[in-house]
Amino acid sequence: MNDPYQKLIRRSREIALLEGTASLLHWDQETGLPKNGIPWRAEELSHLSGMTHRLFTAPEVGGWISECEAKTYAPESSEAANVRGWRRNYDRATKIPVELVEEHTRTTSLANSIWIEARKRSDFSHFAPILAKIFDQVRRMADCWGYEDSRYDALLEGYEPGARSKDLTTLFAAFRPRLVDVLGLALEKSKFAPVLEGDFPIAAQVAFNEEVARAIGFDFDAGRIDETTHPFCTRPGPGDTRLTTRYDPGNFLSSLFSVMHEAGHGMYEQGVDQDAFGTPMGSAISLGIHESQSRLWENLVGRTPDFWNFWYPRAAEHFPALRKYAPDQVCAAVNRVSPSFIRVEADQVTYDLHIMLRFDLERRMLEGDVALADVPAVWNEEFEKSFGLKVPDDSHGCLQDIHWSAGLIGYFATYSLGNLNGAQLYSTALREKPGIAGELKSGHYTTLFQWMRDKVHRKASALLPQELMASVTGRPTGTEDHLAMLRAKYS
Amino acid sequence: MNDPYQKLIRRSREIALLEGTASLLHWDQETGLPKNGIPWRAEELSHLSGMTHRLFTAPEVGGWISECEAKTYAPESSEAANVRGWRRNYDRATKIPVELVEEHTRTTSLANSIWIEARKRSDFSHFAPILAKIFDQVRRMADCWGYEDSRYDALLEGYEPGARSKDLTTLFAAFRPRLVDVLGLALEKSKFAPVLEGDFPIAAQVAFNEEVARAIGFDFDAGRIDETTHPFCTRPGPGDTRLTTRYDPGNFLSSLFSVMHEAGHGMYEQGVDQDAFGTPMGSAISLGIHESQSRLWENLVGRTPDFWNFWYPRAAEHFPALRKYAPDQVCAAVNRVSPSFIRVEADQVTYDLHIMLRFDLERRMLEGDVALADVPAVWNEEFEKSFGLKVPDDSHGCLQDIHWSAGLIGYFATYSLGNLNGAQLYSTALREKPGIAGELKSGHYTTLFQWMRDKVHRKASALLPQELMASVTGRPTGTEDHLAMLRAKYS
Repeated sequence: MNDPYQKLIRRSREIALLEGTASLLHWDQETGLPKNGIPWRAEELSHLSGMTHRLFTAPEVGGWISECEAKTYAPESSEAANVRGWRRNYDRATKIPVELVEEHTRTTSLANSIWIEARKRSDFSHFAPILAKIFDQVRRMADCWGYEDSRYDALLEGYEPGARSKDLTTLFAAFRPRLVDVLGLALEKSKFAPVLEGDFPIAAQVAFNEEVARAIGFDFDAGRIDETTHPFCTRPGPGDTRLTTRYDPGNFLSSLFSVMHEAGHGMYEQGVDQDAFGTPMGSAISLGIHESQSRLWENLVGRTPDFWNFWYPRAAEHFPALRKYAPDQVCAAVNRVSPSFIRVEADQVTYDLHIMLRFDLERRMLEGDVALADVPAVWNEEFEKSFGLKVPDDSHGCLQDIHWSAGLIGYFATYSLGNLNGAQLYSTALREKPGIAGELKSGHYTTLFQWMRDKVHRKASALLPQELMASVTGRPTGTEDHLAMLRAKYS
Repeated sequence: MNDPYQKLIRRSREIALLEGTASLLHWDQETGLPKNGIPWRAEELSHLSGMTHRLFTAPEVGGWISECEAKTYAPESSEAANVRGWRRNYDRATKIPVELVEEHTRTTSLANSIWIEARKRSDFSHFAPILAKIFDQVRRMADCWGYEDSRYDALLEGYEPGARSKDLTTLFAAFRPRLVDVLGLALEKSKFAPVLEGDFPIAAQVAFNEEVARAIGFDFDAGRIDETTHPFCTRPGPGDTRLTTRYDPGNFLSSLFSVMHEAGHGMYEQGVDQDAFGTPMGSAISLGIHESQSRLWENLVGRTPDFWNFWYPRAAEHFPALRKYAPDQVCAAVNRVSPSFIRVEADQVTYDLHIMLRFDLERRMLEGDVALADVPAVWNEEFEKSFGLKVPDDSHGCLQDIHWSAGLIGYFATYSLGNLNGAQLYSTALREKPGIAGELKSGHYTTLFQWMRDKVHRKASALLPQELMASVTGRPTGTEDHLAMLRAKYS
């Protein structure tokens, strides 16, 4: 009872009971909260965030962590990993006053429906006032946390511990020209790729998506799939991981790939020790590692000839409209590359160009180099430079993403890290387990799934992202495997 | 800031933020919680119940209430009503130790899925162990609260303030023979009533139900309808009232009437002052008054020739299968009386016989006169005495209702009070507003809705149930109006 480690476990559990509850309130806000319930929901979330912040930042918690640090846990033990994680989180949390936490939670909860309305109307000015509030809050948080080079780093650290914007700038600068080289090849090859047309009833999409998600390893006894405006994955509690997607009756690929993507996140969440929920050893380490799992299943498994040769007959049973296309035409369609406005619908090659635009813009916004009022103009100018396309309106431009409304600033860069990590982990898995290639041809995913479970999911927060990449793949995050796979696909 | 009334308002708001959250967790448990998430959900609900209990039963709260009682608020003011309500609730809550509250919440949360499984298997022995725990807990609570005549009264008081089982026994003893008289007439008349057969697609049921619920006055900007095993209504927060129903593709009436029923509850919840959420003046006064609203819309509005003459054309558009029946055949079908096993599907006449069985049995169970192991046998014996039918299995007998699994013991009697209150309020409304009868013929519900809003909903907890009935109808709850309406219908 007096062991400081056990005290931390108990406190973590108490916090997790409230944080899990808050996750469910968020999920419910996206899936079905009635319009008039929005203001109260913001108050609930704000109240819960204040309570959990107070519980975690209490001075006694710092004392317990220090006591644990004085003990000699084996460095590879769960105990040691938890103590390291608590220290990281505690030092970060105690720098932010509880009032700011409550205010930020309330603001971002209210911002959600304002953003939805602004996007519907394609009217940035409707969103600008609350966005200004959010940027002001995250700037204040960044200044509380402190940073060496860039205010962006203080925010990025919360999503990707150890990452720094100057390293990302170097990485992206080398990545970009090579990606543009591949783009040339991919555009050439895409000339012959069809766009699938037909009627794909939503009930059939629901059934097919569930079949695929189950096959790759998502556990429906411990999860579910719902419909939202913006797909996401959340885990409100142990044994309860929820994915969302959106349906277009004219395009079954959109919901399928978003389900495979979110199922990748979901399997990571289902793969950490559920009994450790709320402790570092029950939590994913970073978004860049998280995104490696989602991109892996969506792109490296889902957009391949092996996948479509196996799944085509089942898909054609669900969707009679698909029968007018051959399996290789479907595979060509899902790999069709074409510059477009919407990030979440971007192909595998242009996707990272969307990220680089956001990475640059957010840093300039945070530093005040781009005023909020100028965001639409700057976005459109930068977009035209990268993609050669004129943005028709803000809903196809700076209003498209949910992130800013949710206060997720400094977050986008982790998507590109995810692409790179995914490719690097996948090529390591293929090298270590040569049987995977054959299994994928026959629709079996167990070896790949189990490798990710052992090497990534089970690790939870035991290692920092770059420690994990080095330990599992032998190298820090790099662009080679990702580019090599794209080149192989489009040459 | 130092005003004790304002302190109570602030504390109530803090509690309401947590209790509203708990309501949403309950709703989610019924609508879609994955199987493996059940144990954690029980912990969350238990934790929240402990927190709210501690917040409300803190000694300072008692002090603030006493200070307010020393002030001279106008007796009809909201302040006075809130102080009376807080006192009632505080004296009741402080008698129960927080550990018992947490244990009971955890147990009933876990019991839900055990009951569902037992009912599916029709196996009372699967449910019996946790039911024994629940009965033990409510007995301990009843003994904490204390009572004069019957332990049942201590529980009943929580659902229907001021009601006593000896009065109900007297009421039911006079009610029963008259009901049985009507039953004879009703069975005779029902010989000629058809059972509607056909295919009633669920999507069409959803659309028609929503149209009807909207027409009678349920506000979808502040509410929604979902699907569950057992229909219910809950309000997780201001502007957020949720109804549930269940669908049978062979029978659209089942979901329609349960939606009208739950919409009656929902309109009451939407009709109290939303800004007072969590205070007595933002809460319904009792279940017997609540049920008056649901039975009113379901039966007194929904099962009439006026209703079906107006709605038949819309219903027939949604359900082509309905076109083979004339409007008066539909009306005969919805009023068909026939003894049956399942309470929630019972007709308007036999319904109260189901309640009387439960009222008697629960009292005997609470006193230990009926051992839990004997419940199925006693149920079946009593059922045969009342209904002349042999219960085929426990899922059609003592396992049919959700209430015991949820710890809702001493609750059923309020359903019959609701039937009686509903008829009494409705006949008062018709007398005071003679225009209502004409409006109902043309599908307009505003005058009836507004009368209920003014006379019942807006009153919230200002008056105790029998004070409300006396003030609005001039009499305490009686059987006359209900029996007169049934006689008029079936003579």
